Amino acid sequence: MAGKIKTRDRILQTALALFNEEGEAQVSTVDIAGVMEISPGNLYYHFRGKEAIIEALFDNFEEEIRQVLSAPIKRPLAIDDNWIFIYIIFEEINDFRFFYYGLASILERCPDLRPRMTRLLKLKQETSNAILRSLEKENFVLFAHGERDALAARLAAHMTFWLQYRDLTAPLKSGREIINDGVYTTMMQIAPYVRGDNEAYVELLSEYGKGQKS
Amino acid sequence: MAGKIKTRDRILQTALALFNEEGEAQVSTVDIAGVMEISPGNLYYHFRGKEAIIEALFDNFEEEIRQVLSAPIKRPLAIDDNWIFIYIIFEEINDFRFFYYGLASILERCPDLRPRMTRLLKLKQETSNAILRSLEKENFVLFAHGERDALAARLAAHMTFWLQYRDLTAPLKSGREIINDGVYTTMMQIAPYVRGDNEAYVELLSEYGKGQKS
Repeated sequence: MAGKIKTRDRILQTALALFNEEGEAQVSTVDIAGVMEISPGNLYYHFRGKEAIIEALFDNFEEEIRQVLSAPIKRPLAIDDNWIFIYIIFEEINDFRFFYYGLASILERCPDLRPRMTRLLKLKQETSNAILRSLEKENFVLFAHGERDALAARLAAHMTFWLQYRDLTAPLKSGREIINDGVYTTMMQIAPYVRGDNEAYVELLSEYGKGQKS
Repeated sequence: MAGKIKTRDRILQTALALFNEEGEAQVSTVDIAGVMEISPGNLYYHFRGKEAIIEALFDNFEEEIRQVLSAPIKRPLAIDDNWIFIYIIFEEINDFRFFYYGLASILERCPDLRPRMTRLLKLKQETSNAILRSLEKENFVLFAHGERDALAARLAAHMTFWLQYRDLTAPLKSGREIINDGVYTTMMQIAPYVRGDNEAYVELLSEYGKGQKS
């Protein structure tokens, strides 16, 4: 039994690495078995096709990211911790990036994931709103009526589709670059709402952005 | 010859309507032939599969939206015309919305469209930048260093993925609602950069948003 569990986990690890590196559409279950040096039959014993692997990977991802996203809803973070928190979210997204790159395609083939993705997006929206609310309470940002909710929705959309947009327009190579770019572009969206010396905040961010590019 | 051209155009019109209404993944060439009351063989004579239909539809869309997007680059628009212009862009997007809903899936099956989509996204970014530059020149908005370019990229991403995000979180029914929501959420992103009485601008937008929802 221990052996079986191990193979199952190895399949998931190998599939995740290949999906992320080569794109999920380019990788078949035969490829995964080949890299692992096991027979396709052995793989089939654990997962009846690629969709079953994707769904098992989503289970893991969902559990992890739900835990992360719930933190600032349960208890507001200190201002400085918010940036670290956004970094952690993009780390999670990057670990599972094949899903974000191929979202429409995967949801067509795994329709069961669609309502779960919807719930996850709503949680992302709630988390963004909680972060923005805490920044507002600390008088760090100022929102006109309705602006906070609208920004929270945009941030959730950003955390879902920015990787795909970036990949189509100016692809980034390393995971580190992808994460830093995600954090930078998220923080730039909060910048115009910063009270007082917004220029200084943007300047600081811009230095951060340059550091990431070189 | 005239008859052949007519059938080809009718296939494209029917396919576009079905793709937009039911989702491209749900519609086969046999469905299209069925709705048109022609034989699948007749359809096949014009298009060798669904991908060929999607590519022909993209040709038409690309030509139209390129013309629209180029306008403010060639000649700056008056401030009030910018909003109408954003409306026209979302009208174009809505006419071709199946492509936006299934972007990742379609690009996997029609890889030739990928570089063309990349060019289109870059044009969207340029157009957004031209609009923001004209608002800046008129002293309507104020950007810190780097903010204009960053916002232009976000607007291009928004015009590409917002429909898909909205469809996953809170689906809209009619084309009119989709267009209005696209325009509203675009203008909300420009709001925090508006000089002076930003509160009044947001209030106005919010009234516009409410009007659309009822």
